[in-house]
Amino acid sequence: MGGRIYLDWNATAPLRDEARAAMVAAMDVTGNPSSVHTEGRAAKGIVERARAQLAAAFGAEGADVVFTSGATEAAALACGGRDLVCGDIEHDAVAAWCAADLPVDGAGQVRVSDPARSVLQMANSETGVIQDLPEGLAVTDATQALGKLPVAFNWSGAEMALVSAHKIGGPKGVGALVMRQGTDLAAQIRGGGQEMGRRSGTENVIGIAGFGAAAEAAGRELADGAWERVRELRNILESALASADTDIIFAGKEAGRLPNTTCLAVPGWKGETQVMAMDLAGVAVSAGAACSSGKVRASRVLRAMGFDERTAGSAIRVSLGPSTTEEDVLRFADTWTKAIKRYRARAA
Amino acid sequence: MGGRIYLDWNATAPLRDEARAAMVAAMDVTGNPSSVHTEGRAAKGIVERARAQLAAAFGAEGADVVFTSGATEAAALACGGRDLVCGDIEHDAVAAWCAADLPVDGAGQVRVSDPARSVLQMANSETGVIQDLPEGLAVTDATQALGKLPVAFNWSGAEMALVSAHKIGGPKGVGALVMRQGTDLAAQIRGGGQEMGRRSGTENVIGIAGFGAAAEAAGRELADGAWERVRELRNILESALASADTDIIFAGKEAGRLPNTTCLAVPGWKGETQVMAMDLAGVAVSAGAACSSGKVRASRVLRAMGFDERTAGSAIRVSLGPSTTEEDVLRFADTWTKAIKRYRARAA
Repeated sequence: MGGRIYLDWNATAPLRDEARAAMVAAMDVTGNPSSVHTEGRAAKGIVERARAQLAAAFGAEGADVVFTSGATEAAALACGGRDLVCGDIEHDAVAAWCAADLPVDGAGQVRVSDPARSVLQMANSETGVIQDLPEGLAVTDATQALGKLPVAFNWSGAEMALVSAHKIGGPKGVGALVMRQGTDLAAQIRGGGQEMGRRSGTENVIGIAGFGAAAEAAGRELADGAWERVRELRNILESALASADTDIIFAGKEAGRLPNTTCLAVPGWKGETQVMAMDLAGVAVSAGAACSSGKVRASRVLRAMGFDERTAGSAIRVSLGPSTTEEDVLRFADTWTKAIKRYRARAA
Repeated sequence: MGGRIYLDWNATAPLRDEARAAMVAAMDVTGNPSSVHTEGRAAKGIVERARAQLAAAFGAEGADVVFTSGATEAAALACGGRDLVCGDIEHDAVAAWCAADLPVDGAGQVRVSDPARSVLQMANSETGVIQDLPEGLAVTDATQALGKLPVAFNWSGAEMALVSAHKIGGPKGVGALVMRQGTDLAAQIRGGGQEMGRRSGTENVIGIAGFGAAAEAAGRELADGAWERVRELRNILESALASADTDIIFAGKEAGRLPNTTCLAVPGWKGETQVMAMDLAGVAVSAGAACSSGKVRASRVLRAMGFDERTAGSAIRVSLGPSTTEEDVLRFADTWTKAIKRYRARAA
C-alpha cells in the first residue's frame, strides 16, 4: 500500500507494535487456560494480565471485565433480552437490541430520561460527537471513546460498558464487557463456564494478549498528548475543506467531538461516490459505519440529527490517528478539493 | 518448558507454523473487512481465503461456513432455542442447550432415534470414541474429529457441524458453524450484519487467517499418514500402562476411537491427583474436558457409559499429536508407572 493514506481509524486502527509483540509471544504458549497443568496456567496468566491492563487503561480497577469476541458480542450480552431504549445514533450492534425512542438534537446530543433502562454511547463513530452520560446509565458504548479520550469506567456513571480491541490498535475479533463488580448477567454463550460463568468458550488467548498490550499502549499515548496533535490535524483538515467548497457541512461540529473525527457532507454528492473516488486516488475514508458501508443508504446517525435524506446520503467520515501526518491530511484535502471541483463542473 | 511433555492435544494443540505465518502476515493488513476501500477489501480477502481453506479441509465445498469465536459459540448458534436432544457424552457447550435423553452404551455409543432433532458428536474429547452419524442429523460436533480423522461434512449426513481452530493447530478463540447451503438460522449476535447476517461483529481477521492455514495444513498432514503414526504411539502407550497395573481400565477401547486418545482409569486413584502428579513430573495430561477440569467431579462421559462414580472420578485423558515422540510416550509411561506404584504402596 505504498503511498496510500489511511483515514478510516474509526472503522479499525492499524495493529500497534506492542500488540503485535504480545500476540507473537502468546503464540508460544500452548496451554488451554482452563487446564490446571503448567501449560494451562501459563495461558491463564496471559489472559489475566491482559484483564488487568485493560482495567487500568479504562479506569475500571475493581470492575468485572468479561472478554468477548468484540464489542458487538458485548452489546448482545449487555443489552439482549432487556427492555432498553437508546437514541437512533447508536451503532447497529446496540440498536439491534433497543427501542430507538430517545430524542436526538441537531448537534447529535441524546436526552436520556430513564438512565437505568437506557443505552448511550460515549462518542459517535460517524460524527465523533461526545455525550454526557447520566449517573446510573444501564450501558454505555465506549468503543470509540476508549483510547481517544481520557475516559474512566469507574467515573462514567454507567453500570456496564462495551469496548473493542481493534479500535485502539489491538486485533479485530476481541472486545470486552466491563461491569460494576458482581453485576448479575445471564450468559448467552454457555458451556465450559469460562469468564466466571458469564461467557463460555476457550479464551482467544493470542487476541486477548494483543488487546491488553494495546490498551496499555493506548493509555500511555493518550497521556502523552498524541491525540491533541491529532486534533490539530483534524482542525487543519476542516479548514482546508471548508475553503474548498462553501456548501460543505460538518455534522456535529458545534458539539464536543472526538479529536480525530470529521463527518462532512456536500448535499447531492453521494457519500459512496466520494469514498470510491478517494479510494481510487489512494485515500481510505468511509461513508457511515464500516459494518453498514457496503449498503447504499443514508446515514441513520445524520438522519437522527435532523439532516434531510439528501444530505445524510452525501456524508463521509474522515478519521485520523496518531500516525497520521500533516502531509497526509493536506494530500487528502487537495485530492478531495479536486474531486469536488470535478463534481461541481459536471453538475453545472 | 524445556523437557516438558505435552500430552493434552484434545484440550488444545500447539499452534502450527503455517497458522503462525498466516497470522503474522495478516497483522499487516489494516482494513476492516466491511469497508469497501482497498484496505477493507484486502482484509475481506483474507477471511474469504480462510473460508475456502476450511471448506476444502472439511469436505464442505458449497456449504455455508459461518466464522464464530469458537465451537462453543457455534454450538449456541446451532442449538440455542431449538428443542434438541443428545446423549450425556456431549461437550458442555452442546449439553447446555439440549436434553440429555439419548441412551449411551458401555462402549460410549449413542443411539439416535430422531436424527432431525438430535445432536451427536463425531468423536468424544475424553475417550476418543467415534460415532456413526445417522442421515439427517440436526447437528454434529466435529471439534475433535476434524484433522484427526478423514471426515467430510458433505458426506456426514448432518445438517450442521461445529468446528474449532485451536484443536487443529490454529489459534484459540476462532471456530465455525458449517451448514448446508442456505440453511435458515436466526443470528444470536446482531448488528452490522456480517457473515451474511448470521453472525454480526467485525471478523477476527488474524485468527481466521490462522484457522484457514491450520485447516489446510491439518488436511495435508492427515493425508500424509501422520495420525497413523500417532495411533501406533497411543497403542504402545496403552500396552506399557496395562503392563504396569492390572486394574487399569481403558474407557471406550472396544469402540472405534480417535488415533491419539486414551482415557484410563485406576479405580480409587483420583484423576485430579494423577494430573497434578504428572504435572509435577513434567507431563501435561488432563482429567476430563479442559473447560471443566478446574472442577473436582467425576467425568460425566464415563458416568454415561455406565462406569461407577469412583471409576469415573479416577480417569485421566492422555491425548497425543503428530509431534509426540516415542520417547515422550515411554517417559510418560515410566513416570505414571512409578506414580501408580507409590499410590499402591500408600494404599496398602
